[in-house]
Amino acid sequence: MGDISVSNGISNGNGVNGKSHSLNGYRKSCWYEEEIEENLRWCFALNSILHTGASQFQDIALLDTKPFGKALVIDGKLQSAEIDEFIYHESLVHPALLYHPNPKTLFIMGGGEGSTAREILRHKAVEKVSMCDIDEEVVDFCRSYLVVNREAFCDPRLELIINDARAELESRKECFDVIIGDLADPIEGGPCYKLYTKSFYEYTVKPRLTHNGIFVTQAGPAGIFSHTEVFSCIYNTLKQVFKYVVPYSAHIPSYADTWGWVMASDAPFCLSAEEFDLRMKQRIKGENRYLDGRTFASASTLSKAVRTSLENETHVYTEGAARFIYGHGRQNQD
Amino acid sequence: MGDISVSNGISNGNGVNGKSHSLNGYRKSCWYEEEIEENLRWCFALNSILHTGASQFQDIALLDTKPFGKALVIDGKLQSAEIDEFIYHESLVHPALLYHPNPKTLFIMGGGEGSTAREILRHKAVEKVSMCDIDEEVVDFCRSYLVVNREAFCDPRLELIINDARAELESRKECFDVIIGDLADPIEGGPCYKLYTKSFYEYTVKPRLTHNGIFVTQAGPAGIFSHTEVFSCIYNTLKQVFKYVVPYSAHIPSYADTWGWVMASDAPFCLSAEEFDLRMKQRIKGENRYLDGRTFASASTLSKAVRTSLENETHVYTEGAARFIYGHGRQNQD
Amino acid sequence: MGDISVSNGISNGNGVNGKSHSLNGYRKSCWYEEEIEENLRWCFALNSILHTGASQFQDIALLDTKPFGKALVIDGKLQSAEIDEFIYHESLVHPALLYHPNPKTLFIMGGGEGSTAREILRHKAVEKVSMCDIDEEVVDFCRSYLVVNREAFCDPRLELIINDARAELESRKECFDVIIGDLADPIEGGPCYKLYTKSFYEYTVKPRLTHNGIFVTQAGPAGIFSHTEVFSCIYNTLKQVFKYVVPYSAHIPSYADTWGWVMASDAPFCLSAEEFDLRMKQRIKGENRYLDGRTFASASTLSKAVRTSLENETHVYTEGAARFIYGHGRQNQD
Amino acid sequence: MGDISVSNGISNGNGVNGKSHSLNGYRKSCWYEEEIEENLRWCFALNSILHTGASQFQDIALLDTKPFGKALVIDGKLQSAEIDEFIYHESLVHPALLYHPNPKTLFIMGGGEGSTAREILRHKAVEKVSMCDIDEEVVDFCRSYLVVNREAFCDPRLELIINDARAELESRKECFDVIIGDLADPIEGGPCYKLYTKSFYEYTVKPRLTHNGIFVTQAGPAGIFSHTEVFSCIYNTLKQVFKYVVPYSAHIPSYADTWGWVMASDAPFCLSAEEFDLRMKQRIKGENRYLDGRTFASASTLSKAVRTSLENETHVYTEGAARFIYGHGRQNQD
Repeated sequence: MGDISVSNGISNGNGVNGKSHSLNGYRKSCWYEEEIEENLRWCFALNSILHTGASQFQDIALLDTKPFGKALVIDGKLQSAEIDEFIYHESLVHPALLYHPNPKTLFIMGGGEGSTAREILRHKAVEKVSMCDIDEEVVDFCRSYLVVNREAFCDPRLELIINDARAELESRKECFDVIIGDLADPIEGGPCYKLYTKSFYEYTVKPRLTHNGIFVTQAGPAGIFSHTEVFSCIYNTLKQVFKYVVPYSAHIPSYADTWGWVMASDAPFCLSAEEFDLRMKQRIKGENRYLDGRTFASASTLSKAVRTSLENETHVYTEGAARFIYGHGRQNQD
Repeated sequence: MGDISVSNGISNGNGVNGKSHSLNGYRKSCWYEEEIEENLRWCFALNSILHTGASQFQDIALLDTKPFGKALVIDGKLQSAEIDEFIYHESLVHPALLYHPNPKTLFIMGGGEGSTAREILRHKAVEKVSMCDIDEEVVDFCRSYLVVNREAFCDPRLELIINDARAELESRKECFDVIIGDLADPIEGGPCYKLYTKSFYEYTVKPRLTHNGIFVTQAGPAGIFSHTEVFSCIYNTLKQVFKYVVPYSAHIPSYADTWGWVMASDAPFCLSAEEFDLRMKQRIKGENRYLDGRTFASASTLSKAVRTSLENETHVYTEGAARFIYGHGRQNQD
Repeated sequence: MGDISVSNGISNGNGVNGKSHSLNGYRKSCWYEEEIEENLRWCFALNSILHTGASQFQDIALLDTKPFGKALVIDGKLQSAEIDEFIYHESLVHPALLYHPNPKTLFIMGGGEGSTAREILRHKAVEKVSMCDIDEEVVDFCRSYLVVNREAFCDPRLELIINDARAELESRKECFDVIIGDLADPIEGGPCYKLYTKSFYEYTVKPRLTHNGIFVTQAGPAGIFSHTEVFSCIYNTLKQVFKYVVPYSAHIPSYADTWGWVMASDAPFCLSAEEFDLRMKQRIKGENRYLDGRTFASASTLSKAVRTSLENETHVYTEGAARFIYGHGRQNQD
Repeated sequence: MGDISVSNGISNGNGVNGKSHSLNGYRKSCWYEEEIEENLRWCFALNSILHTGASQFQDIALLDTKPFGKALVIDGKLQSAEIDEFIYHESLVHPALLYHPNPKTLFIMGGGEGSTAREILRHKAVEKVSMCDIDEEVVDFCRSYLVVNREAFCDPRLELIINDARAELESRKECFDVIIGDLADPIEGGPCYKLYTKSFYEYTVKPRLTHNGIFVTQAGPAGIFSHTEVFSCIYNTLKQVFKYVVPYSAHIPSYADTWGWVMASDAPFCLSAEEFDLRMKQRIKGENRYLDGRTFASASTLSKAVRTSLENETHVYTEGAARFIYGHGRQNQD
């Protein structure tokens, strides 16, 4: 019933019966509201609340919003919106895979939504994608409801693991050409903090990269003010561990902010915009909507204000190091 | 799916799995918002948008709200909320039916939601209820989704007519013991304006009342300020047509206001609170939740401010009279 | 500067220069928002934020709102609005003073806003009003900015005390004809909880009442659902201490709810509506806007639902009694 | 008084007296709300409404917002916010002035806020800035309240004209090295539409530019979706009139979008990032906060999606041309 009435709603919304103007009247009375920060709100008119559920870890909802289409919301925070998630996922995935000479094996930390796997699997040469998310219900929820990722979830090259990404990486013996961090931001005490620390990068991620492998991670808000929350620290922490580190960013309308990613390797990143475009054509099935060589050139050239404060960042994410390394050592002895 | 996920949502909301605190977190991010007036907003946290639809006349939605339960919204205006609609409907129906010596036949103008019929049908002696609503889709929508009124919709004593209430009354030959107006407010140019005019009461309603029959209508907001919008004019208009007129009011939380009703007849209204209670016991199946003799005594004793401005009201609702009466006359000749 | 621009704002708002329609456009973009409860919001369009300040105990703001005029907000909660505070204050003050044969001396617990004193001082026979509020800054703020109470603050019959109401009452030797509680609700652990307990009423308030003296207190929300929060418990607690207890209520638009008060004494409350009106005329300077005999008759006749749950209320507000009574005893020995 | 209480507010907000946590509590109850589009809202917590006024054309307000500092709002639309207006104004002014070999005389269409003049006047070689705004009250309001622009308003090189920018340009005989459009967007029927048309650029702007002079205009939202509203059309319209046209954009947090500007000339734009930085150092007093050579290189490299749709844009802004050109011709005869 819910689905039927919802589709009614949508078809009306499309104005097929000339009632859309007044339906809009009705619809504008239902809103999704997110507190971007304590004193800043971002509100979307709602068509409907398509599905809601709860996992052992999180609450999940799939909303149908007027400005941004279907939106995945976890614990009251927008994760991705139908209309512009391609900006986030093309930016997270393609630069690392294109800079790498020949990426065949990949590991995704998190990414339960499936969109990161979807973008990776567009690369024809990719042989194996290991996607490791801790929350099985979220994965099942997205597999059931995010039509756009259904094909990816069925791709035989995708290995889906339900586990803590760190435990999984530490338990692996093989290495990966590219490791991708698609996790929640490193909030002190948050679920993912320990997956952004120097020791994690040094002792867990790097050992699992093949020679000249590339690590890339989402890196939180990168706006002219918001980049100091986590973006600059993630950049600086990776600089402690890898020879070459490239921060880049893009404005994502549904996030009401510019978002950041950081790419790191011990091999230099050198591709001209033209080479970037050439590899895109050769390697990727279908057309990118957002990213190409010039877009990446622009995205990886930060504004003066952000560039300067990244250069001046001194904070490094760490854990109570000694104890951790000790414990880590012991695990390795097993 | 919709329904399943919604019921998940609800059970979680009830905290059966200890997740309710965070689900609340999620839920509070979806809101229903109504502009009570241009500068005043009333917002309910949403559990879900259960059903939406559109009729030839109006847009309809059934929302599941946290503070007031399921809420019926038509054209972006709250019509009735699960948690307190009984205040409105007990107040609209029972005083007129209890003051009447022996009401057997009733006519409802509007009332497509079904709750007014439900309350009437609790009166054991009632033989026939003619409910005349102009919007078939709204009636079907409510019959399908408002579980609380399902029994009423199936009662053999209910005759459901889809027609303009005035055309219907003018086409009828028989009379009714009680006629009930359960219509939208008389906004100039609004759909129901002509069902609140002196000429309508005088030439259409009154002729269809049995001897000593009673007319009662919802009469819009009756708050200390809002009663001047329509309540006092409806009262004053009925005073022009009936010997005895009783205005009364009650605070309805989900409306964020005190609501008004006016009862009118050519027979005096005399019942003590005790007689009122006695008739309730004798005539009505089940217990009222809101209304009894003392409640009605209080509801029909208006505060000084409202009482005074009702006494001083001079406006009478009329139409471009002559032409209308002429037309009306012709119809009577038929 | 602030004041000048504000008064500009207001004069424009009044349309003196024909711009008010568009100013409304602007104004509607600023809103005061209050969470009546976790899932229910009440929002007023703002003309301006007239004054803000902070005391040792609370934050204070005087807002100019479009729907309700000037509004006093303490710690983000609306205290009283220019347009309808008369409902609250006439209801709090006049019934007790009118039922009392000849009230000359009064004590106000709280009431720093000054409106309670203002209503009391309209009684010509009143000789002394002791108003005891704990928050000097709030009192100063209201004295400076609430023009409507300026006269009351200057009345020689007013004695203003800055102290904890309980400590003050316990330190007093004299008795009062009427004691009025104009305090925040009794939230467990809240600032005023101990001023609503059985022991406080029994050992602190009652001893300070003259023979046949009357105690009256604001008693929180009294809506059909909200009355169970504190109204029914305050009623039941007072019933343990006084022979005669009268609960009454009124809808206050700016509160988006019906509000409650409870009046208590060891002398019976007997006045007909006519006697009530007569005493009003004889004793009170000027006209009441809200209250008269019939209004009070209605206000003190609760609806079936509320009446029943008050009768069935069993909870009594208490403190860790023994220790308190001991301490109290010691103070009396001083 | 207003100002005092406001400054109290602010100092408290800064937590100087440890009350900030609760003051935040209060403050979050007042919000500025803007409908970015019909179904999208952007809300800032308010500290205070500093000043409001109305001109013959528009309503003006200066708000003190928590997330973005002081904000100038005209007709309910945010014009610029203290915290990030430098992004808009550095981007509007400096590229054109730096690409120009030696700009001495400038004309600003609009710009009543004063910030555009402020940035221009930082260029030591500038000899004369003619700023032409139609709304004297807005200019006076900003001159009085926008402290940051006070110095600019007093600079002897600034000539302030109150007139329609087109009438003014058409009445001028002299030419300008750079003409800057700091106007509202070209909404059909809006006040500024005719200042964005091909004929205006061709017959009014271009004739008033010195040899190799540069025209630059703000060009509305330039986000991945919003750039089609006006940005792409302004770009395409200027392409019809000038040999070289450079569109560029930057994310402005308080606008919740990426913003666009278009720079146009018959001389090519050629400066390396290094030359850009060198001219900045030589010509501009003080340090830019946002813009430098690499920032502009990034800002003027649009993402694939935006670049493609600019290239494919076919719409050109025009007026009912014939009549207009005739009229224009007549004026030239005068």
